[in-house]
Amino acid sequence: MAEFSNPSEVERWDIFEAICTGYSDKNPFIDYSIKGTFKSKNETISTDGFYDGNGVYRIRFMPSFTGAYSFEIKGTFSDKTYTGTFEVNPARKGNHGPVRVANKYHFAYEDATPYYSIGTTCYVWELQSGELQKKTLETLANNAFNKIRFCIFPKHYIYNFNEPCSYPYVGTPVDNSKLTRQNFKEYIGAAPGNKWDFSSFNPKHFQHLENSIKALRDLGIEADLIVMHPYDRWGFSTMSEKEDDLYWNYVIARFAAYRNVWWSLANEYDLMPKKGLADWERYAAILCYKDPYKRLRSIHNCRSYYDYTRPWVTHCSIQRTEMYKSAEYVNDWRIRYQKPVVLDEIAYEGNIENGWGNISGKELVRRFWEATCRGGYAGHGETYTHPKDILWWSHGGELHGDSPERFKFLLNILSETPGLGLKPWNNGKTDEVASMVELPGEETGYYLVYYSFLRPSFREFYFDDSNTYQVNVIDTWEMTIKDFGIHRGSFRVELPGKEYMAIRIRKIKE
Amino acid sequence: MAEFSNPSEVERWDIFEAICTGYSDKNPFIDYSIKGTFKSKNETISTDGFYDGNGVYRIRFMPSFTGAYSFEIKGTFSDKTYTGTFEVNPARKGNHGPVRVANKYHFAYEDATPYYSIGTTCYVWELQSGELQKKTLETLANNAFNKIRFCIFPKHYIYNFNEPCSYPYVGTPVDNSKLTRQNFKEYIGAAPGNKWDFSSFNPKHFQHLENSIKALRDLGIEADLIVMHPYDRWGFSTMSEKEDDLYWNYVIARFAAYRNVWWSLANEYDLMPKKGLADWERYAAILCYKDPYKRLRSIHNCRSYYDYTRPWVTHCSIQRTEMYKSAEYVNDWRIRYQKPVVLDEIAYEGNIENGWGNISGKELVRRFWEATCRGGYAGHGETYTHPKDILWWSHGGELHGDSPERFKFLLNILSETPGLGLKPWNNGKTDEVASMVELPGEETGYYLVYYSFLRPSFREFYFDDSNTYQVNVIDTWEMTIKDFGIHRGSFRVELPGKEYMAIRIRKIKE
Repeated sequence: MAEFSNPSEVERWDIFEAICTGYSDKNPFIDYSIKGTFKSKNETISTDGFYDGNGVYRIRFMPSFTGAYSFEIKGTFSDKTYTGTFEVNPARKGNHGPVRVANKYHFAYEDATPYYSIGTTCYVWELQSGELQKKTLETLANNAFNKIRFCIFPKHYIYNFNEPCSYPYVGTPVDNSKLTRQNFKEYIGAAPGNKWDFSSFNPKHFQHLENSIKALRDLGIEADLIVMHPYDRWGFSTMSEKEDDLYWNYVIARFAAYRNVWWSLANEYDLMPKKGLADWERYAAILCYKDPYKRLRSIHNCRSYYDYTRPWVTHCSIQRTEMYKSAEYVNDWRIRYQKPVVLDEIAYEGNIENGWGNISGKELVRRFWEATCRGGYAGHGETYTHPKDILWWSHGGELHGDSPERFKFLLNILSETPGLGLKPWNNGKTDEVASMVELPGEETGYYLVYYSFLRPSFREFYFDDSNTYQVNVIDTWEMTIKDFGIHRGSFRVELPGKEYMAIRIRKIKE
Repeated sequence: MAEFSNPSEVERWDIFEAICTGYSDKNPFIDYSIKGTFKSKNETISTDGFYDGNGVYRIRFMPSFTGAYSFEIKGTFSDKTYTGTFEVNPARKGNHGPVRVANKYHFAYEDATPYYSIGTTCYVWELQSGELQKKTLETLANNAFNKIRFCIFPKHYIYNFNEPCSYPYVGTPVDNSKLTRQNFKEYIGAAPGNKWDFSSFNPKHFQHLENSIKALRDLGIEADLIVMHPYDRWGFSTMSEKEDDLYWNYVIARFAAYRNVWWSLANEYDLMPKKGLADWERYAAILCYKDPYKRLRSIHNCRSYYDYTRPWVTHCSIQRTEMYKSAEYVNDWRIRYQKPVVLDEIAYEGNIENGWGNISGKELVRRFWEATCRGGYAGHGETYTHPKDILWWSHGGELHGDSPERFKFLLNILSETPGLGLKPWNNGKTDEVASMVELPGEETGYYLVYYSFLRPSFREFYFDDSNTYQVNVIDTWEMTIKDFGIHRGSFRVELPGKEYMAIRIRKIKE
């Protein structure tokens, strides 16, 4: 292997990766450092590299601009300093750059293409068998999901007693041969029998994560990485402060350069009794300091919402805390948090025993439309019982529900909005979910009104006497859009008296 | 006509009515009085009579006990005092007496038969054509409803522009020939053109009301009389204090003796801008003073709940104030008001334009089950568009919806509970609506658990190791009850993974 190698050119928003050999004595994960600085006329970025095993160090950089760049790489990993130049080419078709907050409550790719989040959750899809991972990627390729939440650490929970395909650390796991649905809670946290060296990462595990992130990137899917979580029997949720910080630094050094990475500090942060607010704020500080790309950052709750007004939080990542209302609170959360509202968990379509995992496809789609027409973004998950306990929610694989194809329909409708997203239209009516595009003022010329489980057989509208309006009747469940003609002044829109209908009204430009 | 007549015997909880002739000069409604006192060894009741036109005065009394009674009737209506005796016979089959609050949150007839309220609303069914009234009574006879809300005054609102079959006062109504859905709000209250004498009641109107109350009584249906309401173009909602009080006294004198009367002071009391809290409390005071039978009393809201802790309120009569949650608040209302919670309006099955009148039968039945399993009682209404604008909600007639037959099923299940009703079972599970019978303590041996829109494919239970439990799986929509056998210790109940399922568990007595 060459002592040092780097590409001479790279695509904008892709990864420049330098590979260096260095010291492999002592513990390279903690005893040696590697840092790089990358410069062009538009930016100067400094970032950490990481040890990848076998004497190999890597450092990654995502250029945000085209043109000539230079770099300097040095550290205690080697006595040498490496410098050089490379060229950044324009992004190719399909590469829109990272997703950023845009228009306050919404998102866009860095090239200004709107991003309407339609998320799903497969907590440890990438730690299943290779065959199942392949199937998951195929399923994702055929669906509308443009964000997926998954964990770096393996998962221990009902329907999740198997071992991952790799571990993040060197060591041996607790024996799972006596694990049952009845006693699984006794294993939570650092179960006796685990033997891990929390200062020795397993590069294969992280290489595999990177391949998974890249596979998602190539499908145009954001990787909402769950860095910590409580569903653990290996002790990864109960490491010391020092071990946690080492982990965070390593994760950031490895993954931050991937343009499709979002940081989810935790899933259900409030179910981790060994971690307090000071810990979460410390991880966030590391992330703000060490991620040079300022990727999207949030944290997901169980019983109590995190304070999403914290400056490091870029968007809400909410799990609903009530059985009946969830997406219906988007208006309130927008006002309270003044940030994009992403509902990463609003119960899953399925039929398992737990209330969080057994709503109908109709109810899940209804919640998506509620969230959308209130100016937020909802997330999907699926928990149908399966003869081999393969549930999309954790394992990926195939989808069995009725909701996913309806998200394609919703995404198409969102893609036709003139702007970056919707906001509540405060028209005084309490028996509809009225939205308009998120633009200043009250006259945006685009209105999408959703009737949820209500079944009016007609509705009346009046905007003004001078303009004409194109009206469509949308069946969000049957996925049909019917032309209801052009109207002026007062007009009445006939509806079929069914649930899940919407009316779209667009002002015709003179 | 005889100067005085009275029956010599009467059935317990039926009406003893004395008919007297008296002065008919001046205005007998305000210028003459008639009072009676009725005595047995068990009770002494004094009550007002009323003028019924054509020189006839009537006085009514409902005996609460069997045996010998005496009476004395006198007043300024006549120079004479009438006295006599009569015999009260035992109640016949089907006559259980008036409904009372029982077991704090529930109801029972006075003979201790449980009363599980399944209400409906037909605001002015009794003021429609004779043919339609007959049809309404036929429909009621074939359904589970054991309470109906309706108004003494006619109704003016969308779908309600016709004239009533009679008016409560002597006079002439405002012309309705130019009334439309667009301008109907301009007529609300005392529209110009009305000419009424608010000191001259129309006895025919009230006689008709009495016949309607009796017809309901004979069907075993409680008459939840709405004494005042805001949907008015005749000025009956904007009378003076003196006129209101005259009306209240007359209504009480005429109707109080009917055992199936409940008093609803108003429908949507808070939509009557001319009436304030002092007015409602004054009407309540008249009612408490003048109704010797202490019939059930409440008041129905629109936007804000009345203070149901007021001592004169016997039970909550709630209209839901939110689009999404309604029956789900029963637990809270029980705690807050410490009285029976009756949800007299939780949106109606139908397809009209308004959100309060276009939910599905499935959603309405779901709300009934939510209310029931939380220890409350829900009410029905139906608002399907009709070629002749005959909507059950106001006009009665025929039912067209899917929900009514499901109430029969629910009532049958309630009738099999060992007690007077259900209460929340605080078993710590947030993904089910768990109930037990309303009896002291936590071990009542009867559990009814409802899954609402959730679709578990199984649920697990554990009570103890010593007792055996009979388990049924109930499909509340398909109206099936399946035997799931007898279980002891930990047991798992298989479910079909459908919405609207319930599990009933009954401890088998050793």
